[in-house]
Amino acid sequence: MDSVLRQSKAMCPFMKKATAAGLRAMSTATPTAVSPCGGAMSKLQVLARRCPVMGKAMAVQSARVGHAAGFPSVAAKAGMSTFHGHAKTGKAKLHTSRSKEAQPVDGAVYSGHEKVQLPPRLPTKQHVSAGPAATTRPDASATRAGKFDYDGFYNCELEKKHKDKSYRYFNNINRLAKEFPRAHMSNKEEKVTVWCANDYLGMGRNPRVLKAMHETLDEYGAGAGGTRNISGHNKHAVELEQTVAKLHAQEAALVFSSCYVANDATLATLGSKMPDCVILSDSLNHASMIQGIRHSGARKIIFKHNDVQDLEEKLASLPLHVPKIIAFESVYSMCGSIGPIEEICDLADKYGAITFLDEVHAVGMYGPHGAGVAEHLDYEAHVQGRPRGTIMDRIDIITGTLGKAYGCVGGYIAGSAKLIDTVRSLAPGFIFTTSLPPAVMAGARAAIEYQMEHQGDRRLQQLHTRAVKEALEERGIPVIPNPSHIVPILVGNAELAKQASDKLLQDHGIYVQSINYPTVPVGQERLRVTPTPGHTKEYREELVNAIESIWNELGIKRTSEWAAEGGFIGVGVPDAAPEEPLWTDEQLGIAEAARTLLQAADAEQKAAAAPLTGGFTERLLAKEMKGLTSASVAA
Amino acid sequence: MDSVLRQSKAMCPFMKKATAAGLRAMSTATPTAVSPCGGAMSKLQVLARRCPVMGKAMAVQSARVGHAAGFPSVAAKAGMSTFHGHAKTGKAKLHTSRSKEAQPVDGAVYSGHEKVQLPPRLPTKQHVSAGPAATTRPDASATRAGKFDYDGFYNCELEKKHKDKSYRYFNNINRLAKEFPRAHMSNKEEKVTVWCANDYLGMGRNPRVLKAMHETLDEYGAGAGGTRNISGHNKHAVELEQTVAKLHAQEAALVFSSCYVANDATLATLGSKMPDCVILSDSLNHASMIQGIRHSGARKIIFKHNDVQDLEEKLASLPLHVPKIIAFESVYSMCGSIGPIEEICDLADKYGAITFLDEVHAVGMYGPHGAGVAEHLDYEAHVQGRPRGTIMDRIDIITGTLGKAYGCVGGYIAGSAKLIDTVRSLAPGFIFTTSLPPAVMAGARAAIEYQMEHQGDRRLQQLHTRAVKEALEERGIPVIPNPSHIVPILVGNAELAKQASDKLLQDHGIYVQSINYPTVPVGQERLRVTPTPGHTKEYREELVNAIESIWNELGIKRTSEWAAEGGFIGVGVPDAAPEEPLWTDEQLGIAEAARTLLQAADAEQKAAAAPLTGGFTERLLAKEMKGLTSASVAA
Repeated sequence: MDSVLRQSKAMCPFMKKATAAGLRAMSTATPTAVSPCGGAMSKLQVLARRCPVMGKAMAVQSARVGHAAGFPSVAAKAGMSTFHGHAKTGKAKLHTSRSKEAQPVDGAVYSGHEKVQLPPRLPTKQHVSAGPAATTRPDASATRAGKFDYDGFYNCELEKKHKDKSYRYFNNINRLAKEFPRAHMSNKEEKVTVWCANDYLGMGRNPRVLKAMHETLDEYGAGAGGTRNISGHNKHAVELEQTVAKLHAQEAALVFSSCYVANDATLATLGSKMPDCVILSDSLNHASMIQGIRHSGARKIIFKHNDVQDLEEKLASLPLHVPKIIAFESVYSMCGSIGPIEEICDLADKYGAITFLDEVHAVGMYGPHGAGVAEHLDYEAHVQGRPRGTIMDRIDIITGTLGKAYGCVGGYIAGSAKLIDTVRSLAPGFIFTTSLPPAVMAGARAAIEYQMEHQGDRRLQQLHTRAVKEALEERGIPVIPNPSHIVPILVGNAELAKQASDKLLQDHGIYVQSINYPTVPVGQERLRVTPTPGHTKEYREELVNAIESIWNELGIKRTSEWAAEGGFIGVGVPDAAPEEPLWTDEQLGIAEAARTLLQAADAEQKAAAAPLTGGFTERLLAKEMKGLTSASVAA
Repeated sequence: MDSVLRQSKAMCPFMKKATAAGLRAMSTATPTAVSPCGGAMSKLQVLARRCPVMGKAMAVQSARVGHAAGFPSVAAKAGMSTFHGHAKTGKAKLHTSRSKEAQPVDGAVYSGHEKVQLPPRLPTKQHVSAGPAATTRPDASATRAGKFDYDGFYNCELEKKHKDKSYRYFNNINRLAKEFPRAHMSNKEEKVTVWCANDYLGMGRNPRVLKAMHETLDEYGAGAGGTRNISGHNKHAVELEQTVAKLHAQEAALVFSSCYVANDATLATLGSKMPDCVILSDSLNHASMIQGIRHSGARKIIFKHNDVQDLEEKLASLPLHVPKIIAFESVYSMCGSIGPIEEICDLADKYGAITFLDEVHAVGMYGPHGAGVAEHLDYEAHVQGRPRGTIMDRIDIITGTLGKAYGCVGGYIAGSAKLIDTVRSLAPGFIFTTSLPPAVMAGARAAIEYQMEHQGDRRLQQLHTRAVKEALEERGIPVIPNPSHIVPILVGNAELAKQASDKLLQDHGIYVQSINYPTVPVGQERLRVTPTPGHTKEYREELVNAIESIWNELGIKRTSEWAAEGGFIGVGVPDAAPEEPLWTDEQLGIAEAARTLLQAADAEQKAAAAPLTGGFTERLLAKEMKGLTSASVAA
């Protein structure tokens, strides 16, 4: 048996690193995972379940003994924090939860369609010391008849969500095209102002978009009628993909049901097809990328959020010739931070990687044509129609959505013709699904084209964002600092965040969904406010007043209180450099007016012997509104 | 070294079964996989790459030596047929391709965010005899600078698609709402008749559907504006899910971006969360289910298509208390076969499994309310509004699409409230994606409700299907026999199938996409014809004449030729029992008329001393058309 252990240690990457004493300690330690459904496991068991060889063997053994040793999802989750770099980071847990692989011991592989043979009973106990819990606890997951209790399982999973306050209650919000940004609740008479939608520019009610959709609906009907290969390919798809390619100055583009599917399908396809591919993933990447990476089966390396030094260390540790994909975002939607795109392109060049940039929260919103942050970084070159050699031109794969700033639904990737053709030819999530409806594609194309021609909406959106941030900061409401259009207001507690959201809705007619785990880490719960061009002064004042009164009522921490604790995720951090907005005053076309106002404000403040406070953008908006909105009004 | 091999043999399910001589033969045999990109591998290497332990070790070793040993996707594909039960079954290959698991050796897991350590060098050669090819061949996948050649990789993947004739050329088909089933090509003047769309009932141009969409577009705008949790939940979603639940007489329903996503997300979530879950999957299941099963990481067992005996053997081999999901379809879209739903429910009860039934190609089309095949099997009970205790009532999870017979886009699951709430709460593919547009949800709901009230469209669709099948059979064109509305015409060769499709389009103005690998197995290529209520007599005659002339022109095999070879996948099989259509004459409401016509035809045939041939349904349609269409005309 010692010989087995020795061999196992030689072969198993985990065992090789562990000491005998460490293994022993882990196998007898107090269980880290006590399943609410009756199971309990040692640390070593938890880890062993994640091993593709031992995990299967343990499952089979536990099955033979006639016990389901707790629900592994619970065990895996609980066990994770042991080995995990950021146990508090709920979102990042998606990166490292129990691997979802197809098991190597698959009846069909070894026996075709013959009678399935269970894999041989492996020396589980000797190998990982299964611990007594798994075989002695009562089996809550089986009914008396011995069958698995499915209802018990559903109840148990839901109970967990209720207990950790991550259970979601959906609000019935019916956004009214003619009263944007207003909506009615389930009762048509009950109206609220929406402050958290991702229809950032109000394109969902843009007349050109609606006209294109109505006309297409009448001429081509409701649905596409098939997959792209079988009767679902049409001029709307062709034109939309041409428009997307043109927007990003790339050779080609491919449209998917959603950008979730685009990210998932593209990363899964490339990561699985490129030999020995490694995917380097920002720790705050969206769930769709995390799933795509997992589904690829490629080796995954997480680098610290926006940390190019950490990324470079990880790239440098890999052989040069190995294919690598660096997957990251431009605007991170829950905190509003912006990825270091140019630096990542430099690293990609240096280490032979390709870049996969998710511009989902940036398309329509940044750059002179709304192509996103990558375009924004070479603002002047793109104004002049010279995309070659720009940062956007250097990105290998850009992904974007048609469902946020463009107001419709769907997602896409853009890149070289060969890359796009490869994904088109290989990705099941593209091939085996019905195309988007012609009217949706026509509407999305109209939205992109409109935003390529007009700057007004995104400029006004930026100004409204500045005004809201300034007003909140003035009152000491903690906004997580960032250079983008996202206004994340820190609450820091799941129940308080939900209460604040509920009170905004019930007492003030303002809809801002609370953002809790797993969308953000536990302890970082927030209200995420997204201003639009439609959020005029009255709406903004209403919002800020309501938030202040709720902050008082519920006793939610203000910036000063966070500061007293030394600051938290950017809020109340002493001597922090201010976050400069990505849209500069010059780019917003208000530099001159701003300077005048600034001087006036400065004099005013000096006279009052107080530091410069907010309200500045409000005054600017009052003065400049007409000029700024002329474009969108004219359209 | 012998000891390592002995231990490996004891531990590894594959090695355990192999003889020493067999291993030796495999390690020196002529390579089965010669990569077009420069690599070559022994059979054993190909297999070893699929091992979660050895595959990684080999990848690392090859990386260290500085060679990319061919593209594993090629190797895996070629190697697969060696161990695979149905080497010819391209579609089923999706079940068994290289497992796409997240690798156990993951830098982030073992070192958090520290510098990534490569896993230790494993004794690869000793274990599986790596063969000389991997280390001596030139490395075509790396550029001279030593970086991975991404463009070379794309070219290589595309080249493979071209070589095996699976490269897809999309036809630009713009289906005209007012001229259904006509469409225009990229040139608006060039019109064709569409004979392969999945808008089976023409609901994409149904006035009630379009009206609902126009009104919703005007009132609520183009897009939903967010995920279901963040401002994307509205009355359209609530009402649609209530309607779907009502349709299937289930407690609740959940709508997804597509049924691809619904299948993928639901199976992946349940399979990964239920402890030691085993998923039993019909060998012809759709790609979306195959992906969902793979993504779940659950153990997967494939049972022979529609073979309840095989399924029972596999169920019986599993412990009773282990959770099991039986995943299957009602109508298999590429061959038109129908799953044994009741028998599978019986087995599920007996062995403690739950049933996952994909009704994608059946909703709208079967049953008195269009709820699918499960409803159809208890036709009378459902006509009388007594769903309890029926087969449909016994199904645990029904999945369906809004993009085929309902003419829109999107997919759903229906089941118990607890199950639906669990998937709603846990599935990333549901949680982290923008909701369907309000207008799409309103249109889909209108379509479902319309089809719950009207039988005319699906009855007419069935009659048109019968007429087409009869007319083709009369001329000896090989239709793969089945009891459903699908008309699969066997060609049996990828190039011929594409030529036939191209000729239909170019010479006859008829669009029928050819169906090639990987959608169907190599050698089973076909034209898949889908009649609709709009395919009236003139269209049908045009189609049958065109197909016959192309069959002659290209010398494609007729039924008699397949019969001379002993028959193939149901075509030309001697003494085969006729496939009775699921829709009986009685259910079509034409039993009496049919009997009269049949007697007349019988007498006619006897007089001519010839066997009864087709044309029968044509005559029936001519006579009964008015009565049958009254419902849909009146609507």
